[in-house]
Amino acid sequence: MKPLIGRDTRLCMSLSARPGNFGSRFHNRLYELTGLDFVYKSFSTTDLDAAIGGIRALDIRGCAISMPFKEAVIPLLDALAQSASAIDSVNTIVNDGGVLTGHNTDYGAVVDLVADLDRAMPFAVRGSGGMAKAVVAALGDSGFRDGTIVARNEAAGRAIADRYGFAWAAEPAGEAALLVNATPRGMTGADADVLAFPQEMIAACTVAFDVVQYPVATPFLRAAAEAGKRCITGAEVATLQALQQFVLYTRVTPSPAQVTDAADWARAHP
Amino acid sequence: MKPLIGRDTRLCMSLSARPGNFGSRFHNRLYELTGLDFVYKSFSTTDLDAAIGGIRALDIRGCAISMPFKEAVIPLLDALAQSASAIDSVNTIVNDGGVLTGHNTDYGAVVDLVADLDRAMPFAVRGSGGMAKAVVAALGDSGFRDGTIVARNEAAGRAIADRYGFAWAAEPAGEAALLVNATPRGMTGADADVLAFPQEMIAACTVAFDVVQYPVATPFLRAAAEAGKRCITGAEVATLQALQQFVLYTRVTPSPAQVTDAADWARAHP
Repeated sequence: MKPLIGRDTRLCMSLSARPGNFGSRFHNRLYELTGLDFVYKSFSTTDLDAAIGGIRALDIRGCAISMPFKEAVIPLLDALAQSASAIDSVNTIVNDGGVLTGHNTDYGAVVDLVADLDRAMPFAVRGSGGMAKAVVAALGDSGFRDGTIVARNEAAGRAIADRYGFAWAAEPAGEAALLVNATPRGMTGADADVLAFPQEMIAACTVAFDVVQYPVATPFLRAAAEAGKRCITGAEVATLQALQQFVLYTRVTPSPAQVTDAADWARAHP
Repeated sequence: MKPLIGRDTRLCMSLSARPGNFGSRFHNRLYELTGLDFVYKSFSTTDLDAAIGGIRALDIRGCAISMPFKEAVIPLLDALAQSASAIDSVNTIVNDGGVLTGHNTDYGAVVDLVADLDRAMPFAVRGSGGMAKAVVAALGDSGFRDGTIVARNEAAGRAIADRYGFAWAAEPAGEAALLVNATPRGMTGADADVLAFPQEMIAACTVAFDVVQYPVATPFLRAAAEAGKRCITGAEVATLQALQQFVLYTRVTPSPAQVTDAADWARAHP
């Protein structure tokens, strides 16, 4: 059945330079499964100010923010949740009657995904972009203390590391129980065959965590799985952060079965 | 099946102080019947400037404009089609890559609905609001020459009448072959039982035309139908103007059967 979109239907949306389809599929499927009168649509824009003004003027309930707007959007908002202020990066806006609050559900998703890990584990996070910031802040705020940020860009890498008293390294080396790839290494395209960490580091780790969403099985995670390591995937991050957006927008928590259905459905309709 | 809303789906919308559901139902149903990747959603706003800015920034393809924005929106647009400039009133915006053009499909619908009537018919139009302006301009531009604008508000009535060399009267009187009600008389609510024209004028007319959409069978049209007169209904105006919007937005002309299906479906889901 086509949903009966009408005057009471709430719109949620996304803004990015190059929208994907995961958000539209995941959220619309969950609205259907939970019977909520919402609809979700992705948008691109070349005028962020006017787009945010439109969110206010049209009372659009929520908006996912992707590249390249995650930092630029901050001055246009009324408030930041701790998840966003911790990393100066917003990937989610919640509109409460014209008051726009920025959140970062990538941060929140990583917090949830590492919740049952041993805080004493030494870790290495590879990357110095927005997702690396979210991962490092989530680990630091979760109580992990022994970490190294691996980034060729020393200034960016040190800035992230220093905030939490972690170390910096230009290249991956040594051993760490928790390895996190927060770079495009292993992503579909030019980086598809690149291994995010050397084979010997993978052999020595306990948990392998990759934020890359497409493909889910990156060379790094395939190698870790073959070595019998516990894996945390970019698909888990994508689903969990989208779920946190869903809950922020609708104040409804879907069942685990509904979330699995929506995530599977989204991946089946790329 | 739920429509697969994704990154390529185009959004069309409406802006009014109190949105109805006809537009959402009609357009979404027609998108489904024609297989077009569009979705339609109604909105209200208290900030027309920012709402129009949002239409530009989010590349929203089209927007229906209702009370109280039909005149206020004009300075925010880039161009006016003849249908809108003829009456200084916009009920439809088409967005071509950021260039916003105002149209008036109420005017266009009336032009179509009177197309096969004898231009020599004397007519009386009751009302002096936006819809009366659209009706009078459509009749004048269609070649009707012998008309009276019936309006208690002399200034507003004369302003409309003078533009086309028609007469003005404060109250309906005499005879006219074509009677048009462009007031809320007969509309659901406080005006439900009010007859838009006196019984003797209805008895003397040839065609009775009511722009009231709810109910379709106003006391005026019921009396005219009982007297065997030809009737043109507000439902026909609503459907035809929405169809003209659909064609402007999508550049696709649905079949008459598809239009009837969508209009019936919209009325069945108020």
